[in-house]
Amino acid sequence: MARVKDFVDTQDFTKEELLDIMHLGLLIKENIKQGYPLNVLYHKSLGMIFEQSSTRTRVSFETAMTQLGGHAQYLAPGQIQLGAHESLSDTARVLSRLVDILMARVQKHESVFELAKYADIPVINGMSDYNHPTQEMGDITTMFEHLPAGKRLEDCKVVFVGDATQVCASLMMIVTKLGGHFVQFGPKGFQLREEHIKIAEENCKKSGGSFLITEDEDEALKDADFIYTDVWYGLYEAELSEEERMKIFYPKYQVDMDMIKKASPTVKFMHCLPATRNEEVTDEVIDSEYSIVIDQAENRLTAMRALLVYFMDKRDETVAICNKNLGR
Amino acid sequence: MARVKDFVDTQDFTKEELLDIMHLGLLIKENIKQGYPLNVLYHKSLGMIFEQSSTRTRVSFETAMTQLGGHAQYLAPGQIQLGAHESLSDTARVLSRLVDILMARVQKHESVFELAKYADIPVINGMSDYNHPTQEMGDITTMFEHLPAGKRLEDCKVVFVGDATQVCASLMMIVTKLGGHFVQFGPKGFQLREEHIKIAEENCKKSGGSFLITEDEDEALKDADFIYTDVWYGLYEAELSEEERMKIFYPKYQVDMDMIKKASPTVKFMHCLPATRNEEVTDEVIDSEYSIVIDQAENRLTAMRALLVYFMDKRDETVAICNKNLGR
Amino acid sequence: MARVKDFVDTQDFTKEELLDIMHLGLLIKENIKQGYPLNVLYHKSLGMIFEQSSTRTRVSFETAMTQLGGHAQYLAPGQIQLGAHESLSDTARVLSRLVDILMARVQKHESVFELAKYADIPVINGMSDYNHPTQEMGDITTMFEHLPAGKRLEDCKVVFVGDATQVCASLMMIVTKLGGHFVQFGPKGFQLREEHIKIAEENCKKSGGSFLITEDEDEALKDADFIYTDVWYGLYEAELSEEERMKIFYPKYQVDMDMIKKASPTVKFMHCLPATRNEEVTDEVIDSEYSIVIDQAENRLTAMRALLVYFMDKRDETVAICNKNLGR
Repeated sequence: MARVKDFVDTQDFTKEELLDIMHLGLLIKENIKQGYPLNVLYHKSLGMIFEQSSTRTRVSFETAMTQLGGHAQYLAPGQIQLGAHESLSDTARVLSRLVDILMARVQKHESVFELAKYADIPVINGMSDYNHPTQEMGDITTMFEHLPAGKRLEDCKVVFVGDATQVCASLMMIVTKLGGHFVQFGPKGFQLREEHIKIAEENCKKSGGSFLITEDEDEALKDADFIYTDVWYGLYEAELSEEERMKIFYPKYQVDMDMIKKASPTVKFMHCLPATRNEEVTDEVIDSEYSIVIDQAENRLTAMRALLVYFMDKRDETVAICNKNLGR
Repeated sequence: MARVKDFVDTQDFTKEELLDIMHLGLLIKENIKQGYPLNVLYHKSLGMIFEQSSTRTRVSFETAMTQLGGHAQYLAPGQIQLGAHESLSDTARVLSRLVDILMARVQKHESVFELAKYADIPVINGMSDYNHPTQEMGDITTMFEHLPAGKRLEDCKVVFVGDATQVCASLMMIVTKLGGHFVQFGPKGFQLREEHIKIAEENCKKSGGSFLITEDEDEALKDADFIYTDVWYGLYEAELSEEERMKIFYPKYQVDMDMIKKASPTVKFMHCLPATRNEEVTDEVIDSEYSIVIDQAENRLTAMRALLVYFMDKRDETVAICNKNLGR
Repeated sequence: MARVKDFVDTQDFTKEELLDIMHLGLLIKENIKQGYPLNVLYHKSLGMIFEQSSTRTRVSFETAMTQLGGHAQYLAPGQIQLGAHESLSDTARVLSRLVDILMARVQKHESVFELAKYADIPVINGMSDYNHPTQEMGDITTMFEHLPAGKRLEDCKVVFVGDATQVCASLMMIVTKLGGHFVQFGPKGFQLREEHIKIAEENCKKSGGSFLITEDEDEALKDADFIYTDVWYGLYEAELSEEERMKIFYPKYQVDMDMIKKASPTVKFMHCLPATRNEEVTDEVIDSEYSIVIDQAENRLTAMRALLVYFMDKRDETVAICNKNLGR
């Protein structure tokens, strides 16, 4: 196959490939829930480079490797610095000989891009300042599991409320790639930029999806199937103080029950977590029956397993084993 | 069984349950010493949350998971903060989906209590400012292995010398729970408090044990079967300087050979470690034939294995496998 | 066998023992490259104590343990301090009960020496201020794989260029031990000291090797089979500023193409990495066909696997399994 060696950006893949990975994840999930052990990554090592700390991404990867028979090495912030003491290309080449696959959470997207370029082994982007593709895979899995009756992903309206973080950009990319209908409801100055709009346009042209960026709450939320938000901190160096962010986003962009009521009656609430409760979302919403944030967090693990298997070239073998285990 | 999901406090369990866990630990220990591998936690993940650093607790849990076929994830101080960036309840709920069991060493007992409350998976208390129950399990195992000839745990006099740390409180709880005779020999102001005394009284009423808090050295040490001490630092925020603690505890509460001679001729010396040599205990004592501190440290591992197996609902399966391996 | 329990210094071993470990490493390497899993360290735990951070050493050990069926615990700088809170002997004795084997990267050589002395389990030196023996084992493996046609290790001239770091001293020790010809080409004040010269003399007397310390570039490089360099930082507390080190070593001791041309036409360039590109070595050299630094880095892993197996007393079993797997 001519498929891309690394998972740096979902834009490098077709809709079919991404859905295939999603289904692979669901199959492995069912297999493990049924108690069938998998050993397709037996004795394999994942190197996890974190330039920033993380709970969900790190724990998901580490559990995934254990469940697949391998092991994940946690290289914490400060323990390895890309391009500091050693050139990034040297680090990439050396680690290619010492582990079997790499993931990296980086300060700058360029770092994970370069790592993938110089490494001989697969590299998975565990979030950069530009995008968060493993989150995307978990999110479409969660939407797929919580589709409104009679709807496909392609039929859904997915509304991101708030700041154009890398999670917002990523949501736009995956939803428009898959042919869904994406809306960012956020204030001017904190909306997706020209580069994102280009991607959205291209995706929609191919997929039949749509996208909209708006400050109009009613237009944004009408018939929404999924409402998604993220923290208002801003990104990395450009982080906002609490006072600043409240002034910009509060109360208009806080997801509360009024907002939920403007959406489809079957609307689901999503959040990549961690949440700053009662900033971008009220306790009432995140703890309500509309909220699927814990299922969504669990699907980080679902996604990691699928990505590890897929990029370690164990897709076919794994599908065969799981189908056999599950009597299909 | 209606047994408690979490191991936060030995007071939540009956004497019989605690002894059952102890015996489970001894059985697994023998099995592993004989070279029989166990896989009862195959591909399972333990999340280890440390708000403070630790060697013994962390290494014991990590080795235990490896020996049982699973894997322990080390979430170091600073890598995860309970109740900081994210609400503790959200962290608990998310981790419940990403790992199989949790342990936490916390600054405040309330944190491990809340973690257990919100987590769907078992939570083990790896020490708080209030108690240290995994230490208790290792300690009774060690006493059991070093019982004076002809005595049961119930017949033993266990004397804690020095500051009423959480280890002192824990020792009191487990000894009185099991029906033994507990003494704290420590200065006023650094003795067990009212809340502890209540527990001791309740325990003794049920178990037939006894307890005493005293500044009288001869009374304390007479016929002691075990002498136990801990550092004089004090607890967390209330830590004492070297000068302060020496003024309070030295020389009266230093365990030296004179103290050993006042006890039973078969007395054993215990310490949870790390020790500040020649503060709370002399080199002569800790390096003597009376000292069982290294056996005691090893039994942290004995306890961890038993607790992991027990709270992951693998007790019966493990007992059956071990008995079969050992030809019983 | 009366062999030494620990791997603290290659001087503690005979030439034959060291070559045996090297060949063990090559056998395991081939076995793993052919896809045969090994489980000779099944459920065993390696404790890794790092007083300084490291990428290659840590990742190599961690991957090695995974590939051999065991697990490596990373005790990061700050998480465990040898001889600080707890006496080094207590730490050694306690860890001997909680893990199966230890490695330590230490600030002072004395620490790893003491650790080995007090531990009941094997201790591997993961680099001190005095030597770097696991690097030595990887390096001779790499030289062996890249021998000039018709030459044995004993016939090779190995030239270390630059500062007398612990890597330089280690290279001298292993090359003279094996009967090769070692040269340090470095400035006065930054040359191997009297204690090293004594070792070199003793080794050469037994092995038939030779050694030379010189500031004469032509003499040093003539017919060199391997040119090796390391950073110019200096050691630990005595670290040099960039300005200082450039003044001392630049340009005379920078490995550039002119230097390569003075050596044997089949010369290979080696570096323990990380490299400060365009300080001690030019991009042109390190990226040239002469460079074997990435193979060399990979052989850290080759060495770690062999050392773990050897010091865990699994040499014979492993050789038998590998030979059977490989049809020999």
